[in-house]
Amino acid sequence: MKLRDRNGRIQFGRWEFLIQLIILLNLFAFAFETLPNLSETWRNYLYYFEVFTVSLFTVEYLLRLFLSRPRFSYARSFFGVIDLLAILPFYISTGIDLRAVRSFRLLRLFQLFKLARYNSAIQRFHRAFLIAREELILFGAVALIVLYLASVGIYHFEHEAQPEVFQSVLHSMWWAVTTLTTVGYGDSFPVTLGGKFFTFVVLVIGLGIVAVPTGLFASALSQARASEQAECSENLRD
Amino acid sequence: MKLRDRNGRIQFGRWEFLIQLIILLNLFAFAFETLPNLSETWRNYLYYFEVFTVSLFTVEYLLRLFLSRPRFSYARSFFGVIDLLAILPFYISTGIDLRAVRSFRLLRLFQLFKLARYNSAIQRFHRAFLIAREELILFGAVALIVLYLASVGIYHFEHEAQPEVFQSVLHSMWWAVTTLTTVGYGDSFPVTLGGKFFTFVVLVIGLGIVAVPTGLFASALSQARASEQAECSENLRD
Amino acid sequence: MKLRDRNGRIQFGRWEFLIQLIILLNLFAFAFETLPNLSETWRNYLYYFEVFTVSLFTVEYLLRLFLSRPRFSYARSFFGVIDLLAILPFYISTGIDLRAVRSFRLLRLFQLFKLARYNSAIQRFHRAFLIAREELILFGAVALIVLYLASVGIYHFEHEAQPEVFQSVLHSMWWAVTTLTTVGYGDSFPVTLGGKFFTFVVLVIGLGIVAVPTGLFASALSQARASEQAECSENLRD
Amino acid sequence: MKLRDRNGRIQFGRWEFLIQLIILLNLFAFAFETLPNLSETWRNYLYYFEVFTVSLFTVEYLLRLFLSRPRFSYARSFFGVIDLLAILPFYISTGIDLRAVRSFRLLRLFQLFKLARYNSAIQRFHRAFLIAREELILFGAVALIVLYLASVGIYHFEHEAQPEVFQSVLHSMWWAVTTLTTVGYGDSFPVTLGGKFFTFVVLVIGLGIVAVPTGLFASALSQARASEQAECSENLRD
Repeated sequence: MKLRDRNGRIQFGRWEFLIQLIILLNLFAFAFETLPNLSETWRNYLYYFEVFTVSLFTVEYLLRLFLSRPRFSYARSFFGVIDLLAILPFYISTGIDLRAVRSFRLLRLFQLFKLARYNSAIQRFHRAFLIAREELILFGAVALIVLYLASVGIYHFEHEAQPEVFQSVLHSMWWAVTTLTTVGYGDSFPVTLGGKFFTFVVLVIGLGIVAVPTGLFASALSQARASEQAECSENLRD
Repeated sequence: MKLRDRNGRIQFGRWEFLIQLIILLNLFAFAFETLPNLSETWRNYLYYFEVFTVSLFTVEYLLRLFLSRPRFSYARSFFGVIDLLAILPFYISTGIDLRAVRSFRLLRLFQLFKLARYNSAIQRFHRAFLIAREELILFGAVALIVLYLASVGIYHFEHEAQPEVFQSVLHSMWWAVTTLTTVGYGDSFPVTLGGKFFTFVVLVIGLGIVAVPTGLFASALSQARASEQAECSENLRD
Repeated sequence: MKLRDRNGRIQFGRWEFLIQLIILLNLFAFAFETLPNLSETWRNYLYYFEVFTVSLFTVEYLLRLFLSRPRFSYARSFFGVIDLLAILPFYISTGIDLRAVRSFRLLRLFQLFKLARYNSAIQRFHRAFLIAREELILFGAVALIVLYLASVGIYHFEHEAQPEVFQSVLHSMWWAVTTLTTVGYGDSFPVTLGGKFFTFVVLVIGLGIVAVPTGLFASALSQARASEQAECSENLRD
Repeated sequence: MKLRDRNGRIQFGRWEFLIQLIILLNLFAFAFETLPNLSETWRNYLYYFEVFTVSLFTVEYLLRLFLSRPRFSYARSFFGVIDLLAILPFYISTGIDLRAVRSFRLLRLFQLFKLARYNSAIQRFHRAFLIAREELILFGAVALIVLYLASVGIYHFEHEAQPEVFQSVLHSMWWAVTTLTTVGYGDSFPVTLGGKFFTFVVLVIGLGIVAVPTGLFASALSQARASEQAECSENLRD
């Protein structure tokens, strides 16, 4: 029962588990490939693994394409496009010049979204987002406004004291982002008394605005879980 | 139905959407203007856009002024004052010397509050604030007390070891702010054993005091949403 | 009604509001006094204000002492002790050598607790603490254990690479504190691959353990508010 | 009643309290031992305390072993293994060469888990984890994916500008970890405009994903408390 979603499709067989594992390995291989002092042997191994992965995904894509009930309908579905984007860069990069298309390889990350595909629990998150949508959007807007006001304010206070770091309002936004998210790298911070007091005020206002949506989403998620269970018990009664 | 609030005023027509877009563009233009290496051509474009915006807002202001039901009553309303403050600096800065009034341009940020105007969801936030007001104020007071005690304590521990960074209790407050909000820029931190242990104690106490209000507000907001829906269904029954 | 608590004592008259204001001003004066380049005139003003404050608090203390129903019972109450500690350091510091007792002046901060005194809402926080006590204590213990394990672990990984910063497990605890609270001053961080991966694991485990108590306390506080309202409506029915 | 858990075992007698205290002291001693400038006398004292602790734990282990109802069944239980691991390293390290086994001493930290043993409240945490398991795992997976995508993205933006700090995608992961957890040591941060904007986007998405599980677990914990109380009152009725 659990392996099928509402539309009756099989979700988590052994085959799909294997696919997920290969995607994960492939993502690791991609990260590994960027290491600067990699030996030629390792580069070859990684390339062979890449060829194997793409072949496997191509076979899977073609199978899905021919087996989809209205034939070829899969090609136009959301995951059909993602599956195509996951394998296409490989074929293009071997056909034309390798260097120029290298930047397109970032598209290989779309393979990642195949992970999301097999997981039905994402629907719950989607439902939770719908519940708290208005507040989240409003909070997002207010957060952006506070970010803007903080940038303008700190520019006013610190521009003269640190003309390099706080060159313009746009440059000051970097300070606003790292401060309001409490990351605080330490590459830009106020040195004037006014700037420091302003930072205090911004943090008092800003911390709430940045952190509240988290709580909102958490409560919406538990609400979604409750409504899901209610639906489930209704289905059992029918 | 949704486009009108309780007083029957229209809230979100296409016109108002356009106004919001222009305000946003204007705010971007203001940030853009502070870039140090801006060409003369761009400065001119930005000035023309400023003139256009202010003209538009002036027309809007006059229309609202004459169309408000008890004529001119708009001038004394909250948003009437904000709308006036959004356009006034422009006329003053062209009349008198430009340089001296430049600092007043920060007032142009009041235009931002026009964004808030068109959004009725802010009422919900206001309601949530009323629900948790007492706790939020008390928590704010306790947070300030902790901030003060932390400043005095770290001054005691670190004044001798770092006389520059921890010059006085007032200077130590900057450390207290960046530490209790967990920003931690890295421009001021304890180096003595006592100071480090004190930081640990302050963080254990302080983190809760700084972070709890967030949770309080989030729960109050969901409570406000629930009471709003109850009100809404009552209105439908009537 | 609201101005009296359960024992029928008056809580917030104008007089008490004035006292609170003076306490606040006194705290500011104490912070101001530590400024290094303060002129003689200002120092005198601050001293006069100190004398005035202590006189006022002394009169208040004596009045409370004689007016408490079982006479002098006030002296043994919690706030009686705090009130005494708030004025005693002044008399001691003028009697004996000033320099030696200066460190005792930190005790003047006990004046701060007078602020807490007039506020009955603290009872609600106390109640919330009782509700979530077990979880909070358990979480505190687990947090300390994680702190310890993190310190031992990072010492193992980073001791050789950075013998200065990670001298011993006790020195490594400073890193653990600044990392688990996400302050991250930047004075101590791992540089080895093992240390970085260990930091990742510690953060994944530790963030939850540090942050969950906040949520626990917030929910306990709203529960306390609910039970308070239930009590209040019961009282009205009687 | 409270001192016995469901299986009727005594949980918190005076003896067990003493054991806990000794474990705590032993953990402190272990941290103290790593101090670089420790005198010979202190080293000896610490060694004697170590011998005393291990003897005590050995006696306790043997007692438990012989007194467990199906005799020796204790040896195969979870805590039996932990108790053995807590004393075994001492005997091994004295038998063979001391230096080589020193690294195994980290195993002595398993003694720590004895602390967990006496505390039945951990069952509640276990129950809370079961309630929110699915969401926590899903959130963990999404967090890892975001971490990966953030690493690849920042590598793309910053590799050229800072080839040392962002050597490879694997090196960039350190930046992703310190940024998404908002620790922000300041040893690696973006300097290019693209990298800074990417950091902003990552933080907006990532903060929610990192922080929501905390809220989820807090709500699950209060749910577990409620169901525990319901169970408890049912037991009383029977």
